[in-house]
Amino acid sequence: MSAWLMAAFLNGLDSAETTALTEAMLHSGDVLDLAGAPGTPVDKHSTGGVGDKVSLLLAPIVAACGVPVPMISGRGLGHTGGTLDKLESIPGLRTDLSVETYKRQLVTLGIVMIGQTDEIAPADRTLYALRDVTATVESIPLIAGSIMSKKLAEGIDALVLDVKCGRGAFMKTEPDARRLAETLAEIGAEAGTPTVALLTRMDAPLGRAAGNWPEVAESVRGLQDASDGAGSIADVMDVTLALAGEMLALGGAASDAGTGREQAAEAVRSGEAFGKLLEMVEAQGGDPSVLDAPEARTEQAAARVVEASAEAQGYAADLDALGVGRAALALGAGRRRMSDDVDPLAGVVVHRKPGEPVQPSTPLATLYATEGSPRADFDEAERRLLGAFSFAEEKPDVPPLLMDRYAGGAWGRG
Amino acid sequence: MSAWLMAAFLNGLDSAETTALTEAMLHSGDVLDLAGAPGTPVDKHSTGGVGDKVSLLLAPIVAACGVPVPMISGRGLGHTGGTLDKLESIPGLRTDLSVETYKRQLVTLGIVMIGQTDEIAPADRTLYALRDVTATVESIPLIAGSIMSKKLAEGIDALVLDVKCGRGAFMKTEPDARRLAETLAEIGAEAGTPTVALLTRMDAPLGRAAGNWPEVAESVRGLQDASDGAGSIADVMDVTLALAGEMLALGGAASDAGTGREQAAEAVRSGEAFGKLLEMVEAQGGDPSVLDAPEARTEQAAARVVEASAEAQGYAADLDALGVGRAALALGAGRRRMSDDVDPLAGVVVHRKPGEPVQPSTPLATLYATEGSPRADFDEAERRLLGAFSFAEEKPDVPPLLMDRYAGGAWGRG
Repeated sequence: MSAWLMAAFLNGLDSAETTALTEAMLHSGDVLDLAGAPGTPVDKHSTGGVGDKVSLLLAPIVAACGVPVPMISGRGLGHTGGTLDKLESIPGLRTDLSVETYKRQLVTLGIVMIGQTDEIAPADRTLYALRDVTATVESIPLIAGSIMSKKLAEGIDALVLDVKCGRGAFMKTEPDARRLAETLAEIGAEAGTPTVALLTRMDAPLGRAAGNWPEVAESVRGLQDASDGAGSIADVMDVTLALAGEMLALGGAASDAGTGREQAAEAVRSGEAFGKLLEMVEAQGGDPSVLDAPEARTEQAAARVVEASAEAQGYAADLDALGVGRAALALGAGRRRMSDDVDPLAGVVVHRKPGEPVQPSTPLATLYATEGSPRADFDEAERRLLGAFSFAEEKPDVPPLLMDRYAGGAWGRG
Repeated sequence: MSAWLMAAFLNGLDSAETTALTEAMLHSGDVLDLAGAPGTPVDKHSTGGVGDKVSLLLAPIVAACGVPVPMISGRGLGHTGGTLDKLESIPGLRTDLSVETYKRQLVTLGIVMIGQTDEIAPADRTLYALRDVTATVESIPLIAGSIMSKKLAEGIDALVLDVKCGRGAFMKTEPDARRLAETLAEIGAEAGTPTVALLTRMDAPLGRAAGNWPEVAESVRGLQDASDGAGSIADVMDVTLALAGEMLALGGAASDAGTGREQAAEAVRSGEAFGKLLEMVEAQGGDPSVLDAPEARTEQAAARVVEASAEAQGYAADLDALGVGRAALALGAGRRRMSDDVDPLAGVVVHRKPGEPVQPSTPLATLYATEGSPRADFDEAERRLLGAFSFAEEKPDVPPLLMDRYAGGAWGRG
């Protein structure tokens, strides 16, 4: 198997080979049957990036609009976080539900978010462990097979992909990201699961928070207060609503993705999306009262404000997502090894993003970690954070996050 | 390791990497010290082919000329034979000598021919087993590392290589064979062991016999009776004397390879080479009297003569070494798996080679196997043998076996 992985890594796999691999991994374990669930279950997968809390907003928005969302997520590794770790930073919330509970909650609430179980695509875990030690992780067909075998095992009827591209993403270059999106969508099509992919930029962090609880708090503010909250995380909302529009169209709740996006925005404004989030948190054992005033939990952490130096004048020109991700890692928000624990409160909240004005002593970010945490290295985090910023006298152009859309075998903004 | 082998197989290894691999395999076991031996020990390695009995003639010739030959050989697999199997077809002869006996016999006789021991390059066996199951056998740097680690472990001062090229050889194409020769010689040079490679043709079988005892019998006739014997196996003698010339030059017994070749031819004519073979066979427990009249042993086998069909008219135009090798394998002369036994008497002796006249009913070959051997399939062997021949009305050109010579980092006939 190790030799085969290296051959696949070096020579690639064609479309038929990638599909065969995915099918073999998919059927190495249980394929969930959601036939009893109402409607058309649709899920989203993101290839991951720094500050990517989209799932926390997206799942309740889509569920509030009537499309069931059965989401099985992973944990974070390295500079990127995982939805599961973010959810578990909500006190009491459990993600290790049984398959029966998972199905029941999907029927009653239309939303359920759990972690991988041993029964789903066990071959993927074995293969990933081999890829890790044989230096064959970064292979588009192997990545695609890994992602799709797990998603297809969820029992969903359709899938939306957020394929991230840039220095903070797994795919650093646009051609690689496009190839991954195409490969994923082809596997979905072969499996009879309609799959739409959005290509989105991941050069700067998504939103302002990176870290588990900091990202939950930011998401909650986004859903709680659309006028204010969404304003400060307009980039997160833009990506979330675009994905929601696709999911609602695929789930049959909207005639097309544009109409779906409107419905999704309305579900945020009306508070129904936030209400759905609270219902899910409560159903999974979490304390919903914490989400009503997230600042109270944030303030439990030790904090350090990082200010701009005396030379900074003008605008934040660039903010390297990788540097921010590593700052969060240095604070204990992430894992260096899969066996590491994460500090739920640790993370970074940036106060300036590219295009925003900066003066000497402007607070650039706040660093957080649980008081007395032995894993938190505030000095290293501050160094990495300052290294992630660059400044300019002129206001820089900030490119939009949504780059392209792949659906029905073709690129184009639908 | 499997992943590494596949990466090496697909991407190749550069010169430094190949040398590092060889050194690592060499030092995974004992490196014999022949410091006590008189003179300059020199060995030969052949990449193997059908009917390649050169070692049986070459070692006694070179030893008779005063250059010690410590030769560690392997067994046959598939359609090619191994020197060890050929030697063991001489009743009583042992090849499993201890390292002490090996050294002592080299000192007293100047010649010793044994099999691989567990102490020599054990990593090569482990790697070969992995290459076998990971489909990474046919890689020039991996082949070169395997060959050279074992040869350098013998304690030799210089090495001559017979790199075979053609459809009956491991290297089918001339560019591959040249690359293998260059790689082997470079490793030798890096290790401080002067290495000369001859590139020789392996499209038709070498000589007329393929199979263990049949090849010993043919070699004995070649050494016993230079005028007659060498005439019928002129091709074997041509390659043998060329290699002998190189070994005598590298061993300091001749001023150059041309002079060495003359000395070698004289050692055959004088009978000294045959005398040296008898001494070695006796020292290693074999019955030398069998070699005085090899026909007697040949006649113990069951035999079938294969004749040309009624359409054959003119000349044997081509004789495919691979087909002849497979005929010998069908008779039980070789191994399909490494765990198979071989039938020492089994094999093929062809009576017509390319360029020789053929009429309807001309005996083309005799097939041999031990009487009643359950492994012998005379019908399959006959089919394969007939399939290996082609005929022509015009006498075909038969190209010379010696193609080129690689020494001191350059190709050219020295």
